Order: sequence, then C-alpha cells, then structure tokens
Amino acid sequence: MFDLIIRNGTVATAADVFEADIGIIDGRIAQIGRDLGPARREIDAAGKYVLPGGIDSHVHISQPSGAGITMADDFESGTRSALFGGNTTVMPFCLPEKGAPLREALADYHALAEGNCYTDVSFHIILNDPTPQLFGQDLPALIAKGYTSVKVFMTYDDLKISDGDILRTLDTARAHGGTVQVHCENEDAIKYLIERAEREGNITPFFHTQVRPIAAEREATHRALTLAEVSESPIVIVHVSNAEAIGEISASRARGVKVIGETCPQYLLLTAEDLRDMDWEGAKLVCSPPPRDKASQEACWRGIENGIFDLFSSDHCPFRYNDVSGKQAPKAKTSFRHIPNGIPGVELRMPILFSEGVLKGRIDLPRFVALTATNHARAFGLYPRKGTIAIGSDADITIWDPEAEYTVTHADLHDNADYTPYEGLRLKGRPETVVLRGKVMIERGALVGDRGDGHYQPATPHPAR
Amino acid sequence: MFDLIIRNGTVATAADVFEADIGIIDGRIAQIGRDLGPARREIDAAGKYVLPGGIDSHVHISQPSGAGITMADDFESGTRSALFGGNTTVMPFCLPEKGAPLREALADYHALAEGNCYTDVSFHIILNDPTPQLFGQDLPALIAKGYTSVKVFMTYDDLKISDGDILRTLDTARAHGGTVQVHCENEDAIKYLIERAEREGNITPFFHTQVRPIAAEREATHRALTLAEVSESPIVIVHVSNAEAIGEISASRARGVKVIGETCPQYLLLTAEDLRDMDWEGAKLVCSPPPRDKASQEACWRGIENGIFDLFSSDHCPFRYNDVSGKQAPKAKTSFRHIPNGIPGVELRMPILFSEGVLKGRIDLPRFVALTATNHARAFGLYPRKGTIAIGSDADITIWDPEAEYTVTHADLHDNADYTPYEGLRLKGRPETVVLRGKVMIERGALVGDRGDGHYQPATPHPAR
Amino acid sequence: MFDLIIRNGTVATAADVFEADIGIIDGRIAQIGRDLGPARREIDAAGKYVLPGGIDSHVHISQPSGAGITMADDFESGTRSALFGGNTTVMPFCLPEKGAPLREALADYHALAEGNCYTDVSFHIILNDPTPQLFGQDLPALIAKGYTSVKVFMTYDDLKISDGDILRTLDTARAHGGTVQVHCENEDAIKYLIERAEREGNITPFFHTQVRPIAAEREATHRALTLAEVSESPIVIVHVSNAEAIGEISASRARGVKVIGETCPQYLLLTAEDLRDMDWEGAKLVCSPPPRDKASQEACWRGIENGIFDLFSSDHCPFRYNDVSGKQAPKAKTSFRHIPNGIPGVELRMPILFSEGVLKGRIDLPRFVALTATNHARAFGLYPRKGTIAIGSDADITIWDPEAEYTVTHADLHDNADYTPYEGLRLKGRPETVVLRGKVMIERGALVGDRGDGHYQPATPHPAR
Amino acid sequence: MFDLIIRNGTVATAADVFEADIGIIDGRIAQIGRDLGPARREIDAAGKYVLPGGIDSHVHISQPSGAGITMADDFESGTRSALFGGNTTVMPFCLPEKGAPLREALADYHALAEGNCYTDVSFHIILNDPTPQLFGQDLPALIAKGYTSVKVFMTYDDLKISDGDILRTLDTARAHGGTVQVHCENEDAIKYLIERAEREGNITPFFHTQVRPIAAEREATHRALTLAEVSESPIVIVHVSNAEAIGEISASRARGVKVIGETCPQYLLLTAEDLRDMDWEGAKLVCSPPPRDKASQEACWRGIENGIFDLFSSDHCPFRYNDVSGKQAPKAKTSFRHIPNGIPGVELRMPILFSEGVLKGRIDLPRFVALTATNHARAFGLYPRKGTIAIGSDADITIWDPEAEYTVTHADLHDNADYTPYEGLRLKGRPETVVLRGKVMIERGALVGDRGDGHYQPATPHPAR
Repeated sequence: MFDLIIRNGTVATAADVFEADIGIIDGRIAQIGRDLGPARREIDAAGKYVLPGGIDSHVHISQPSGAGITMADDFESGTRSALFGGNTTVMPFCLPEKGAPLREALADYHALAEGNCYTDVSFHIILNDPTPQLFGQDLPALIAKGYTSVKVFMTYDDLKISDGDILRTLDTARAHGGTVQVHCENEDAIKYLIERAEREGNITPFFHTQVRPIAAEREATHRALTLAEVSESPIVIVHVSNAEAIGEISASRARGVKVIGETCPQYLLLTAEDLRDMDWEGAKLVCSPPPRDKASQEACWRGIENGIFDLFSSDHCPFRYNDVSGKQAPKAKTSFRHIPNGIPGVELRMPILFSEGVLKGRIDLPRFVALTATNHARAFGLYPRKGTIAIGSDADITIWDPEAEYTVTHADLHDNADYTPYEGLRLKGRPETVVLRGKVMIERGALVGDRGDGHYQPATPHPAR
Repeated sequence: MFDLIIRNGTVATAADVFEADIGIIDGRIAQIGRDLGPARREIDAAGKYVLPGGIDSHVHISQPSGAGITMADDFESGTRSALFGGNTTVMPFCLPEKGAPLREALADYHALAEGNCYTDVSFHIILNDPTPQLFGQDLPALIAKGYTSVKVFMTYDDLKISDGDILRTLDTARAHGGTVQVHCENEDAIKYLIERAEREGNITPFFHTQVRPIAAEREATHRALTLAEVSESPIVIVHVSNAEAIGEISASRARGVKVIGETCPQYLLLTAEDLRDMDWEGAKLVCSPPPRDKASQEACWRGIENGIFDLFSSDHCPFRYNDVSGKQAPKAKTSFRHIPNGIPGVELRMPILFSEGVLKGRIDLPRFVALTATNHARAFGLYPRKGTIAIGSDADITIWDPEAEYTVTHADLHDNADYTPYEGLRLKGRPETVVLRGKVMIERGALVGDRGDGHYQPATPHPAR
Repeated sequence: MFDLIIRNGTVATAADVFEADIGIIDGRIAQIGRDLGPARREIDAAGKYVLPGGIDSHVHISQPSGAGITMADDFESGTRSALFGGNTTVMPFCLPEKGAPLREALADYHALAEGNCYTDVSFHIILNDPTPQLFGQDLPALIAKGYTSVKVFMTYDDLKISDGDILRTLDTARAHGGTVQVHCENEDAIKYLIERAEREGNITPFFHTQVRPIAAEREATHRALTLAEVSESPIVIVHVSNAEAIGEISASRARGVKVIGETCPQYLLLTAEDLRDMDWEGAKLVCSPPPRDKASQEACWRGIENGIFDLFSSDHCPFRYNDVSGKQAPKAKTSFRHIPNGIPGVELRMPILFSEGVLKGRIDLPRFVALTATNHARAFGLYPRKGTIAIGSDADITIWDPEAEYTVTHADLHDNADYTPYEGLRLKGRPETVVLRGKVMIERGALVGDRGDGHYQPATPHPAR
Repeated sequence: MFDLIIRNGTVATAADVFEADIGIIDGRIAQIGRDLGPARREIDAAGKYVLPGGIDSHVHISQPSGAGITMADDFESGTRSALFGGNTTVMPFCLPEKGAPLREALADYHALAEGNCYTDVSFHIILNDPTPQLFGQDLPALIAKGYTSVKVFMTYDDLKISDGDILRTLDTARAHGGTVQVHCENEDAIKYLIERAEREGNITPFFHTQVRPIAAEREATHRALTLAEVSESPIVIVHVSNAEAIGEISASRARGVKVIGETCPQYLLLTAEDLRDMDWEGAKLVCSPPPRDKASQEACWRGIENGIFDLFSSDHCPFRYNDVSGKQAPKAKTSFRHIPNGIPGVELRMPILFSEGVLKGRIDLPRFVALTATNHARAFGLYPRKGTIAIGSDADITIWDPEAEYTVTHADLHDNADYTPYEGLRLKGRPETVVLRGKVMIERGALVGDRGDGHYQPATPHPAR
C-alpha cells in the first residue's frame, strides 16, 4: 500500500522522459512503473509533466543589507514564494557579522528558519572573515557537519576577500569535500568607475549598469578560474551574465578546470537599456552583475542550451521598492551606489525557463530538470536525496500544467517584495501541484501545506581530493 | 508476474544512480523499485552495476575497403564481439556502390544482417553520390522510413563530397529530421603531404600519422561547422582527435551551432609515437584521423569529462593484419597510402572507458551511461526505445562487475580480426551479463543468446526544423 | 647639383618623421639633410608632409567582367585617378582567359598599359587555370622574370581553384620567391545562400550583402591559412572585412604562419545597412566581401591600428552605374547575382586614411606610410626601389597639404566611373604635389605630367624558402 | 665640414635598409647620402651594418635587493657593459624607499649616475608607495619634468600595489602623458605555491620555476590589460614569457587596448629544465617570470617575428653568484624563496637577437632596429632624439660586424657579475664601433670613450589623452 501515487503523468528526470506512475511510501519514491497500486491517495497527472521539485541554490533570505534596508523576505514568505514557483528546496546564504563566530551565525540563521519554512532548506555560508582558525579548524568541521558550501566575493568592500584567501578557501574545500561559489567582479575597477560616474554627475540607477562593465566581470572570472587552476580545485562561478565571462569558463574547462557555471533569469530577460528611461525607478532592476545587452542575453541562452551552465538559479534577493525609494534609504537617491543590490525572482525562475526555454524549443525537459533541480543537488551535496525522481529519493515532486497561459503580475506572486521585474510578461506553463517529501503542499494552485513543513537538510561532503 | 527481475543492483541512467530492482515484461522495462516480484526469472545483481546496454553508433561491418581487402567482421562476428563488449545495439554504415540506388544498397545490407546479429542494429547511410534526386526525393523518403542518419566525408577520393553537397545534405536532413555525421579531414592537404612524403621516401605506416596532421582535421572541422552554421543545421563531428578540433567545436557552440562531438578509444590511448618503431607492423594502428600525441590524448580526456563530447564510439573498422601484410594487399607495402584505414575496437570501447574513466575518477556512472548509450540513442533516433533504463524502454541491460581485473589479449576477444591495438592493457571492470530486449544473451561471461536474436531497429526522425 | 630639391618639408618614412630637404638626382633620392643645394628646381614643402608616393597594390584596370560589362577604367583613366590620389605605383591584375597562355595574356596586358600610364605599374597574375605545366615551368619562369605575384580565388565559379591547386600555388611561390594573394570566401556556402535568397524573392542589391556572410569569409580565411600552414608558405589575405576573419589571422600568426593582411576603405566606411534602403541603386556598393556592420568597421580600424593589417588598398574595381543599371546589363535587375562585383576607390584610398586615420589620431604618419606604400613595396618585390624615402630609392614622392578641407564629390575625381561610394564625405588633407621618379606629375593639384610617364616595374623575387 | 662621416655602410632604420654615408655635426645626424664630405674624421663601414645605437629600456643598476645582497652593477660597470653590447642609452629603475619622497630618491639616483656613465641614461620610477599626493601632484609634476615612465608590480610583497592603485597610475599617466609598465604575476597564487613547495621540502632553485607558473603570469596579464581597458589607458606589459600571456595581449588588442609587449633573451634561450640538474647553482638562472619550456620559447620567437612584441630588452638585473651562494646571503640556501631574482644580460641582448634572429632569418634588420632601439625611444619619450638614424637625431650609432664568430664567455664581458647565463653560446655578429652623440666610444672593440660621457636624458611626455 503506497501512501501516494501520482498517476499517468509524463515523468522527466535529467536524463529521461517517460509515462509512468510514481509510488510514494514514507516520503520517498518507492516504485516507478505502470499501473501501480493501491494507495491511500492518488493524484491524476494525465497530460501533465511530473518533475523533480525545483532546487533554487541561490536565494537570499533574511539577510542584512549594507544599506540599512531589511530584505523583503523572511523564511516564511521566501519559501512560500519558492514553493509556488515549483521549488521544494532552497539554499539561502548565512552571512555572519564580521568577527562573530560562524557557528553562532548559523545558529541564529537556523533559528530564523526553524518552524517557518514551506520548502526544505540547506545553507551556504558566506565566507567574509578568513582566518587561520577558519581554514585550519572551523571550515573542515562545518563541512563535516553538513555545511559544505561556502561563497566568497571578489566585490563589495564588506564582503570581498583576497586572492590568497580565495586560494585557501578552495584548498580547504577541496581537501574536505566542500564547494566554493565565487561572485566574480573586480571591485577596484568598479570603484574606479563609480567615482568617475559620480564625479560626472551620473548618479541614477542606470549608471549602476555602466560602472560594473563586462570587463570587470570577465577579469574576476578569469582570476577566480586561475585560482582554481593553481590550487587544482573545483569551483562554482555564479550569476554569469555575458559572452566574455562564458568564454573564460569555456577556456578554463579546456585547461582542465572543473568549473560549474550558473546563470539567472535576469540575464535572459533584462538589459541595461531597460533602466535608461526608468530614472530612479530603475532601482527595481539593480542587481550585480547588472543586466547587459541583447547579445549577452543570447550568449546566456546559448550557455543554457549548450552545457556551459549547469545551474539556473534565481539569485532571489528581494527589496521593497517602497523602502528603497522612501525614508528607510535616505542615501539611495544620492547615488546608485547606495541602492541595495538585488531583485526578487524565486517564484518565476522555473516558469520563465519552462515557458521561454522548454516550450520555445530551446531546451528539452531533461535539460530543464537538470538546470533547475538535479544539478543543484549534485553540486551542493543534496543528491541523491534531492533533485531527481529515482527510487529512494525524497518524494519532492512538482506537477506542471504545460498549457496554462497567463500574464505575470506581482499581485499573483507570494513573496514580500512590492514588485516584480517581470510585470506584464506573458508565460505559458506553471506548477500546479507541489509535493514535499510525499506531502501535498500545493494542490491545483492552492496552498495546503503548513508553515514548518519545510525542514533543514544538511549537505553531504563530496569525496575529498 | 514479471518475465525477469534484475534484483539488488546499483542502477545507473544518464542522470541517476540508485539501488533498485528492475522488472521486465515482454522485453520492456515495466517497473523500477525495491522488492519487486514475483518473476519467472531473477538475476541477482548485488554489488554490480546495472546499466543500459551500450550503443556503439560508429562501427563498420561487412563494408568493402578500397584496398581490395575484406573487412574482418561480418554481422555475426561483429555483433558478437559488440555483445561481449556490453553493447546491445550497434550502428554500422551502409556504403552504396557509386551509381547504385541507395535502396538496393540498403536491401543488400539488410540481407547481410538478417538472421545473423547478436545485437540490435540500425544503419547509417554513407552519402557518396549526391544527386538532385537524392536530395529532392530519396533522402527524405529514407528518413521517413527510419534511415535517418547519413554520413559524409571530407576526405578519401572515392567518398568525399563537395561543400555544396554537404550543405544540401545538412539542409535536407534538417528539414526532414535526419542527422548528419561528418568525417573532417582536408583531403587536398593530405594528398599534398602524401605526395611529399612519398617523394622523400617516407612510406612506412608511421608516416600515415604525419601526412594527416592536426591542421588538416582542424580545417575540415571548422569548415563543416561553418556549413552547419550557414545552413542553420545540427551536425555530428565524428572521431575528434585533438585540442584544436575541440577548440573549433567549442567556438562554434558559442556561435549557436548545435554540434554533437564524438571521440574514440584510440584518441585516448594511442599516439603517433607508438608507430615510430613498429615499422610495417604499424599498419595495426593505421586509422584516420591518426593517433596524435600525449597532449591531444589529455585534451580528448578533458572533452570526455567536460561535455565537449556527447558520444564515445569505437569506430570499429577491423582488418586482419595477416591480410594487410600478406598477398591480399600487395600494394600495402609500397606505401602507407595503400594500407586500409581502420582498427578494431567494438569489444573494448566500454571496458576501456569504464576502467580508465569511471574507476579512475575522471567521470561518474551517469556520464559513462550518457557517453556510451543514452546520447547515441538520442542522437540517432533510437531514444527512448533504446539507451536508457526507464519505464517502457527496451530491456537492454548490461550488468557490470566493477571488480574484475584482467589483461587485454586478442585471444579473449570475439571479433574476427587477428590482433587488438590494446594487447597487454590492464583493465578493471567488465560486462558480466547482457540482456537484449529482456532475453539474457550473455550470462556471467558465457554466450547464451542466439545468432539472429538481434534485430534491425529503424530510427525515428527528429522534429524537422 | 641636384635635379630637384624638396625643401623644408616634414618627411616621413615607415619608421621616422623628421624635418629635412630631399635631394634628387636622375630620378632617385640622392641626399637627405638640411640646407641641401643647389638644384635645378626646388619645391618648398614648408608646413607640408613629404611622404613616399602611394602604392596601391590592389586595383583592377581594363579587366573583363563576367557580366558583359566593361570595367570603367583603362590604364589611362585608372592611373590618372590613382595619381591624383597620391599614388605613384599601382598594381593591377592580369586575368588570362581560361586556356590561353599566361605569357600571351601578359603581353596583351602590357600592350594596354604601354604608353598610357600616369603612374608606374606592376602586375599580379590571376591564377585561374592551374596545370602541371603552370606549376612545373611557367610560374617559376614568370617569377624569375618579375611577375612574382599571383592571386587565387576561393569564390566565383569562373575563377576559383581547388584547395589542392592553392597548395601547389603556395608551394611553387615559396620555392621560387613569389607571393600569393587569396580572396577568401566559401563559394559553395554563398551559392547555397544565393539560391535560397532568390527562391524567397530576395533579389535586390541589399541581399548581396546577406548571401556572403561573415561565416563564409571566416571559413575560407581559416582554410587558406591552414593551406599556408600545411605547406609552410607565406600568404596574403586580401580585403579582410570583419573581426572573425581577423581572429583567424591572429590565431594563425600565433601558430607561426607568415600572413600579410589587407583591408580597404569600404570596410572602414560602409555597412550593409547602407544598401537596405537604396533599392537597385545599392548596386553602387556591391563588392565582395560586402560591407558588414559597425562592429566590423571598428574591428577593421583596430586592425589598422594594431598591426593585424600590413596593407591598406583600394580594391578599386570600377563599374559605371549607368552601365549596370542600363541596357548593357539586362540581367543585373533580375537578381543581385548578376551585378558585377566591385566599386571604385583608388583616388580616395589615401585621403580617407589620412583624414580618418592620421588626423583623427588613430595612426601616426609612419604607420600611414607603411600601410599605403612601404609594406606594399615589401610584400610585392618592389622594395627598396619603391615605397620609401631612402638613399637610392626612386624619387616617388607625394607632398600632402594636411590642412585642406573638402567634401568628396565624384565631379572632382578623375576616374571613369560615374559615381563614388563616398559622395558627400567630409575630408581633411590631400595630395598637393606628386613626383614620379623625380618628375613632377601633379603640381599643386594640377596635372603636369604626361600620359606614358608611368612605366612598368618588374618585381624582384623574394629569397626562396 | 662634418665632424664625422660614417662611410659606405649598410644603414638600417626601423623601416629601411640602404647604402649611404652618414654625416654628423654637433653630435647630431646632419646628412644622409652618397659621397658626403669632407669631415674631420671618417669611419669606413664598408661591409658593415650601421644601426641606431641600442636602447635597453629594462635594466636594473645600483638597485637595492630585498635579500641584503648588493646588485653587482653600478652605473659605471652597468653602462660600460651596455656600451660593449651596442647600446647608447639604457633606462634603469629608480626604486624609492617606502615613505621617502620620490624627488629625493631621484636625486640620489641622479647622484649615483652623474659622471659615471658610458651611455646616456633615462630613468623609470618604480611606483611602490601610492598616495593621493602622488597621483594628485607628484606624478604629474614628475612627468612634466621628464620622468614620464613608471613601473608597477603585481608581485613581490614589498613592491606590489593594488588593482585600484594600478588604475590610478594608469589614469594619471594617460592624463599627463606618462607610460606605465606592469610586472604581471599573481602574488597570492605564487605565495600559495611557495608555501606548498616548502612544506613538501622542495627548496632548490629549480622550484622557483615551479611556483611561478604560466597561469600566474597569464592571470596577472589579463588583469593588468583589463585595468587598461577599463581606464582606457595605454600599457606596457614587460618580460612576457609564454604563449598564454601572449594570447592575452593579442585578445586585448582585438578589444582595442593599446598594449606594448616586451620579451627578453632569457625567454628565448633558457628553460626551467635547465635548472633541474643544477642544484643550488640554478640560482644563476633565477629570474621572474622564470624560464619556461621549449614551446614557450617558440611562442616568444613568434611574438618577436609577428609583431606581438614591440620591445626586446635585457631585464639586466645582475647578482654575483659568489654573493648569492656565500656568506652575504645566509638564507639563500634555506629556500629558493630567498634567492634574489634577476640575471645579467645587457651586453648580450643585441648580439643574441642579431645572431639568433637576424642571421638565422627570423627577422630582418629593420625589425631588429625597431625591437632594440626605435620602439624603446618611442615608448618612453626619447624619440626622435634617440632610437633612429634620421636627420636631426642624436648621432647614436653602432657599427656591426656581421661576420664575427665567437663563443660567449663571461671573461669577455664587461659587467660586474661573475657569470653569464649564456656561457658557451656560439654567436655570430657583434658591435664593433659605438658612437654616442657623435663621439666614438668604442673603436673596433676597444673602449675609447670616457666615464661620464654618458648623460641623463629626460623623456618627453606623450600627448595626454
């Protein structure tokens, strides 16, 4: 007797597409086949796609921003929005206050998540305070405990660490089975251009896109990849936005570097030009790297299609425009420099790629599954528990209606921001039913799961090299 | 009641690895799960890998060679050898005599295969006689009938066709859902170098490797990819041997060309240097493109690892050294030019990649499955019937013993050649049991299936573009 | 006693800029220094640039066109126009009728030039009829006689030769000290696109630019450079139009190929877009390769600046629009395919580069001299007789007024075409006085030399390799 | 009446080669022609090459080394050695003590040079103490006074400056007409590898070559070029050692960056392998970047031939092996890390390039002149006073005997080191007579000039951009 059977759907994994029933017992996938049964509960998925629940490995939740503005989403709203977007796991970042012990920061972050989540969660740690103690003891211990993923920054004064510390991070992670993500932009180049822009009176959000040029991203990408090459370590390059950075990834792979590349919806759909006529409302599209141009979009699509990218994430980093443009951020209108960087997107990541990618024939269903779920689980130590539909895996499943057509509007979304960058976008196909470890969380578009149903999932270290 | 259950194995697809039983009914995979049953027959695969049967999409069987030497393998010996190598499907080439109707050539080829095969087979057509009739009528009709794959040559006087005809081939194939493979070497450059070598008295097999330089392969690869770019058609580049050709593939992907790349065991294990001291026995390693150098091997391994290659094939093209060096080929000793090009390899393709690739940590099991089975089925219209372990697919399954260690010697192989290029190679891991459409063909290393159990499999056209 | 002193000018060579007098005896430069004298005649060049007379190594004169239209310029009008453009030597192409002996073709061509020229001339031979006799005997003999330069085509049905024949041409030229120019466009790709365009009813001149895409030029460039690599021969790639072809040149140089690159004014100033709204008048801008886009222009400018290009030529190939659009070319309006390829430019080549390049700060005077004179003489065996201001060299000197400002109009030009592609262009700086072997041919803008003052100049073979 | 005539030589400039006499008055070139005269003194140069005196823009003299070892050459010995090597100008580096005012450092350095030089000298300033005062006032003032050239380091703890300070340096230099040289190696990557090497007990000089890999140079080169791109500034990349760094230069030129590249004899003649069996005597070949491999040498030769490099310098940085291996450097034998970086070479730079480059047919005389003299003068503001043979230029001339054959041995050299890295090398061609501003300094191999004949030469700022 199964607990649940999802019947008659078109099932897809990162490799395969086939018609089958899926039988679930104790929250796990127990059987795949035709005519399974009986079960306590059945869902008819005829005419629907039955896919692994999405894993968005790049979201920011309840993270302090430098600008004194609170991030719009906490774990409740952030994971609720994610769930409606077809996700069953999200991976937010734990950002320690400088000087504070990592374990404390993690404890605080766990406390914020505990009992509040609609999806499962696993954490990345932002490594902004590199010390011998960290590399010698804390990081290995954390990796062993399930905090296997760290992120380092090459930009932002309060976050960036030196090349030497990136090397030590890569080295330690490789030796202990961790994963290192790098935000690649050359801070000094950007600061030089910010100063020049401000000197010339170019202070509106549009200029945010001009002072973080492709060259600054390409340079830092080349550098990060070289550090991986020198230390013979795998590396994850996040939010790649253009052909030149893609070229660096491609070249380093040819040299033998094991690099995982990520891109995000904003690099497929937005351009710097979009901000030109928005004046201060351009703040709604301020993220880093910034949106580029049409040729860059096309290059990112090609990277989606041809294997340059393994990960498609949202980089959900929500601020309320009302906050940014209001009293809470008095400096934000003195220069784009003070606008907090980040835009919301966790709920639309998968629908955008499904509609623009799968339905427009750019990618097939297995590639969609790989980009939105399987590869995330593999990269960050959640596989095979998460990210696929296979015997023994968690029954994290999203049933997609491929026919639904609709216009994006923020009113229909479930995050706590007050806008979406994709307002007015026409999409086709959407998540209809979402199952988390065998429990139906969303049923034909309605939330039926409970806050707290989502749990923390420790990651498994990779084999050390 | 299942016909057969393969129990307790570690199952892998191109995406996943999991422990499960596989239940087979009527030659197809009916159920995947734990504790399946009952079944008429069971195989215990505990401690073993249960993988999709290999598909070798690049083998030459019963094909006439220009040099007047008969190819060593017919369908019986060729597919028997393939089966022992873990394959359940092979794709040989039908080479029509020039001027003869394609349908006749196919009929002849079917006749050769019919009743003689130990694996399933599907055919590629070598397109060496391009006519308006061919592009306008015959090829579309053949594609519709299941002969969806054609191969064109940019080298060999009796095979090569013009750029214009390659364009027409690509164009027609794209419009009707076919697939085009291209052998990329610049014939004129090679002929120029052959003449120079012969003039200088450089006539032994080693010089075969010198007159077909990387530059000639790179050039033709660039050209073929440009023809695909200009005609907006997908393309398959076969037997890629070096970093420069790889660079062309990578660059064309960045331009948006849909290119599938293939490499073969000889480019991972052999070098031109191997021939230097072999004198005329170097004929045993004469193939085109020729083996290159260590750096090229490393580049090909990286391509295996990083996604440049989708296909790993044998390019099995067996001649008996006894024939080549004997009376049957009187001209072969007057110049390397007259040595038939091709080496055997269908039986060792998968064991080599398993041992050198999977067990040495270069690739994981899903990538192994993709490179040796799934991607071949996808590329050539046999998916989802073939190439995976999924509900509804043919039960083509190879059970691998990952622990077996052995030394390669031709005496242990099952082809009809009289040597192997890999004599003396130490390997670990081998196919133990092979199941074809639910029938056990090899059981713990012993042939139990029958000649004729292998059937012809028509290919399904891709969606036309 | 000097025959002529050019006094007080700012003299430039391909290396240097300095103030000096130039003393001329017997048509040659005898002395360079300050306060030279006395002389029979003096020209005051204070405030002027004294530069080597231009050498335009790429002009078409009195050449038959396939379309049945006579080329607009014969040797009289062509060299007169060249002279007014600051040139003292031009190098037109001798195109033999197929099957006719090369020597006869040359004799005919000499006869056309003899007594009619205003500048010196030296000839290239178009090699369109490759035979063993040609490579074995005729070409070596011609090179030894001063016809050291041949051109081969990879496009145009009536001109293109095979890769093998290009190899033999390169090989023979290298062995005997000749130079090989290659027109790089893939004929088959172009023909494929022409047929598609015509099928779709896209027949106006604008589509000429669409059916000869960058990819077709890039491919042929890669191929030509590979043939040079394989045969270890130097090579000249003419009329390079875009960044991708430039990339091929750069990459082949890194491999050690000795390649000379050429670009032309049309690739700096025109774009395909210019033709879009011109309807059939677009015939005025039909040349091959066609004008590209702004990014390609910028890439060509960079190649001018950074050393990719050694040669800046006009590719003067004049047709009368009146002929093309009139009764003489009845087919020209049935499809762009029948419009003869080529545009005039010999008179504006140097003024354009002077105004847009030197005066706008892109290049300095020595680079201007190198690109317009010295490098041509070096590449084609006329150095040190031609192309520089050095002791013993021919006194071929153009005095430039750097201050003159004017608007280009065909009425002011001296060719026999009936339009200029650059009508309305504002330029600054122009040739004021032109001296050919010590004889003043143009004096402050007025023609004072005589038809027939220009003589044939045989080229000196390079050292054979 | 000329002061000096050099008669009947084969004169070469960066553009031309011709037979002529050169007439000198007041230390400057007054006339070039045949049969000049009369003169107070004449030198017969029949059968000889008369070339501009060499300019070595990259030498270290009297510079403190971190290791407590004094550099072997002061201005007397350093310029004497340079003079014997065919140079008439050298450009050493003024290295200020940190915190000390630049003007003082320059005054000290002037004092060391004053009255002691055999060649003219001009100074680069090493910029190791970036302050707002420096960028705002001191550097612009110094550039205006003739100290137009600064060098920055991306490696060495006591020298390296941040990307931001490199940007400010580039920006200030561009605005005021200065030139910026960059030593490109990633310090953090090197330190990481040094620590690993030492941990593993790999401490001999050979390991110096292993801890400064090509990747570290390529990365820093890419970064420096990006900083030039972002600040739209010209840049000089010094001592380029391999194909990957060359590739970065080539790519950045295609992006429009104005980059001057330099290589040195050690990258043409030495390899890391040379150190492998030298044990501690390998200290004699310790320089940074270190010698690479044969493929890198070949790439550097191609860069010499094909225009990648504009400058060929010695990077003369002499230490006595006796010092390094003796009591003065007690730490040098505890690890390669403590061996001072640098090798001698000022006297052999030009003979090596003449013998290996010109006489072996890799480059012609004009390219030799450009690489060893003219381009240095142009890059560093000494042109047209220095670096060429042109009317009005300083009469700095070296007469070369192209026939002399000899074996390099340190006993024949004139520096103050105690070895040469090129001991035993066979060379052909050498400087025979050297003239500095019209005064004969070396006459047929014998020193006839006086200490103090060499003077300081301020540089002229470039036009600001």
